Amino acid sequence: MSFAAVDVIRAKRDKGVLSDAQIDWVVDAYTKGVVADEQMSALAMAILLNGMTAGEIARWTAAMIASGERLDLSGVGRPTVDKHSTGGVGDKITLPLTPLVAACGAAVPQLSGRGLGHTGGTLDKLEAVAGFGTKLSNEAFVEQLRTVGAAICAAGEGLAPADRKLYALRDVTGTVEAIPLIASSIMSKKIAEGTGALVLDVKFGSGAFMRQVADARELARTMVELGKAHGVTTVALLTDMEVPLGRTVGHSLEVEESLEVLAGGGPQDVVTLTLALAREMLDAVGLGDVDPQAAIADGRAMDSWRALVRAQGGDPDAPLPVAGEVETITATRDGFVATMDAYAVGVAAWRLGAGRARKEDPVSASAGIILHRKPGEAVRTGDVIMELRAEDAGKLPAALDVARGAVTLSDTPPPSRPLILDRIS
Amino acid sequence: MSFAAVDVIRAKRDKGVLSDAQIDWVVDAYTKGVVADEQMSALAMAILLNGMTAGEIARWTAAMIASGERLDLSGVGRPTVDKHSTGGVGDKITLPLTPLVAACGAAVPQLSGRGLGHTGGTLDKLEAVAGFGTKLSNEAFVEQLRTVGAAICAAGEGLAPADRKLYALRDVTGTVEAIPLIASSIMSKKIAEGTGALVLDVKFGSGAFMRQVADARELARTMVELGKAHGVTTVALLTDMEVPLGRTVGHSLEVEESLEVLAGGGPQDVVTLTLALAREMLDAVGLGDVDPQAAIADGRAMDSWRALVRAQGGDPDAPLPVAGEVETITATRDGFVATMDAYAVGVAAWRLGAGRARKEDPVSASAGIILHRKPGEAVRTGDVIMELRAEDAGKLPAALDVARGAVTLSDTPPPSRPLILDRIS
Repeated sequence: MSFAAVDVIRAKRDKGVLSDAQIDWVVDAYTKGVVADEQMSALAMAILLNGMTAGEIARWTAAMIASGERLDLSGVGRPTVDKHSTGGVGDKITLPLTPLVAACGAAVPQLSGRGLGHTGGTLDKLEAVAGFGTKLSNEAFVEQLRTVGAAICAAGEGLAPADRKLYALRDVTGTVEAIPLIASSIMSKKIAEGTGALVLDVKFGSGAFMRQVADARELARTMVELGKAHGVTTVALLTDMEVPLGRTVGHSLEVEESLEVLAGGGPQDVVTLTLALAREMLDAVGLGDVDPQAAIADGRAMDSWRALVRAQGGDPDAPLPVAGEVETITATRDGFVATMDAYAVGVAAWRLGAGRARKEDPVSASAGIILHRKPGEAVRTGDVIMELRAEDAGKLPAALDVARGAVTLSDTPPPSRPLILDRIS
Repeated sequence: MSFAAVDVIRAKRDKGVLSDAQIDWVVDAYTKGVVADEQMSALAMAILLNGMTAGEIARWTAAMIASGERLDLSGVGRPTVDKHSTGGVGDKITLPLTPLVAACGAAVPQLSGRGLGHTGGTLDKLEAVAGFGTKLSNEAFVEQLRTVGAAICAAGEGLAPADRKLYALRDVTGTVEAIPLIASSIMSKKIAEGTGALVLDVKFGSGAFMRQVADARELARTMVELGKAHGVTTVALLTDMEVPLGRTVGHSLEVEESLEVLAGGGPQDVVTLTLALAREMLDAVGLGDVDPQAAIADGRAMDSWRALVRAQGGDPDAPLPVAGEVETITATRDGFVATMDAYAVGVAAWRLGAGRARKEDPVSASAGIILHRKPGEAVRTGDVIMELRAEDAGKLPAALDVARGAVTLSDTPPPSRPLILDRIS
């Protein structure tokens, strides 16, 4: 069936519901270049402003999956379960979580992305490890899942090509923040990758794409329904991203913090979230009686990390790069850190060189921020609150400007915020 | 001043008001290709759905004018006044009106367009006249206004290039129907063409782009304000387009009907609207005491037409093309024509060959429809209501299908509709 692109755009513009045939056609025609970028961007803006029904989102997602191949992980020999975070500042959870869950008996097929804007990407973080390769063929991916139980790499060209094209378009046309398009983008890739179960970490707050918890909840519900409709056991945690996660932001710094977690230490919030997500993942594949804390304590999780790094060409014993240019932000009075705006910290790290303005830009592996104090902690005048690191000293002043604005102090400790607000299944 | 396109798009997407600097930048950057088509189409959709303030529309229009040259008609030696119709089915008014107003002492600088979709374009109609050329240089345009008092041609490349580019984009992205963009598109061209006064024929109803009278009124008010703000005396008539105008739809057929009007005959609605618009145009330039009816009666209007056609290379004595393939729609019972849907008649004429699907397509000069009966007129079983003409007999069946659906019959005459609903100044 064929349509005129302009009629499909008009239907959504006028608050109509697109038919299954219209959705199938427009996604396929866009992938093939029959529908032009300027037509799809107008449609995306109409979707963003006028919304989609649950039925439309389900069909749109199915059409994106159908635009490419769907991996078959049945030969892996273990139950498969993946985790996806909607992105945040200091969110390095995939790094300790993936080998941990693998050490507990599941296989974790992690197709990850790169950072854009103020949030970092898992692949950029892993590339701080000397030699680590993020490109795997489908065959190598499946084989590594079978042998190591974990693989973290970029999605292949064949998976949901419609999404790849649409995501790049949304990024430059102000249409990223549409819940139906975010949900279908994430879920089409995760379903196409062939995972049997999926745990979603849906973040809300200043450092997240969804600033409002209501939007995050709607996104989580939408994705959980999509997963179930495609036979993937799906659970979501709603987690706080008002404050950066952990005590480091920046690629090599976050790898270092992840290694601390795998060694049994690490910041409390990172440990808590890693274990909570690990338990959800194990539960989802019938391994709910395996204790992930034990796998950290007895070293199996760290062994699993080393096996994962080696399997992808990396050297787990190589020293991580350290940036030589350092500036600090200190307390101007005695008191407590009241707030630490995750978005501002993310922008500061981005300005230090950890982030990119365009997809093609390189990133600095060692640039980043160490958070010596976090909200709720006491400070005395002159105490270091943040330490900013860059390879290029010229990048420090602009980063300092925005980092200083991220912090407020108070006379009494601020109320504590729950890290995990809700669970949606 | 420079912006990121995505920030401008987001501002309008989130219902913000664009700053003057943002508008100036985005219009200029789009004209130069710095802002991509897919970015402008997303912005256009956001404008369509979230609207613009009067201040934003004024600035957008000014930016479109500033994207090109503005003609100086001071050397014409007569007051200048133009007319613009928002487009309808059977709307050939420009053809008799332009020479008529010129015959009354004003100069009429008509930059016209071509038809797209179900409405015909003035330039397509004029090209039914053998030899008529629709391309004039700026110098030839001004000189013809000085000598003949009228010129009807395509807008030159130098006039409002931003609008030219944006109009083509809107056409394929479902963003034509945004009042701020329609108003700024029309007014930027009319102001750039240098006319001293402007009379707008803003149509509403099934055959118009604005189906609802409230939308047409808002568009009329917006354009009148824009004209005044740029020193152009501007008046609008709100006119009915529920029923086709006159008794012909199609290029050569409409030229023929226009000649009847210039000769003192013609359908009552075409005559009424032509005279009403002529009086508004003459009033607007201080020639309110000149009687256009007299200029028709004594042959000056027809002389002016012949001079206009000759000046643009046409032969006013050449026979008009006639399409040889004919089908009719007849009354299935005695009664009255109750309704005749202008949109359906427009689509039928389009299918006969009078319209084009793409800008590049040729049109048939002779294809079209003669309306033997119109709403309010009595019919007996078998009377011809419509006569469809095409060069290609293969085009008749699909046109007949839609034309039949355009007509309903009734036992009693339908209530009459006023042709001119309101005047806005």
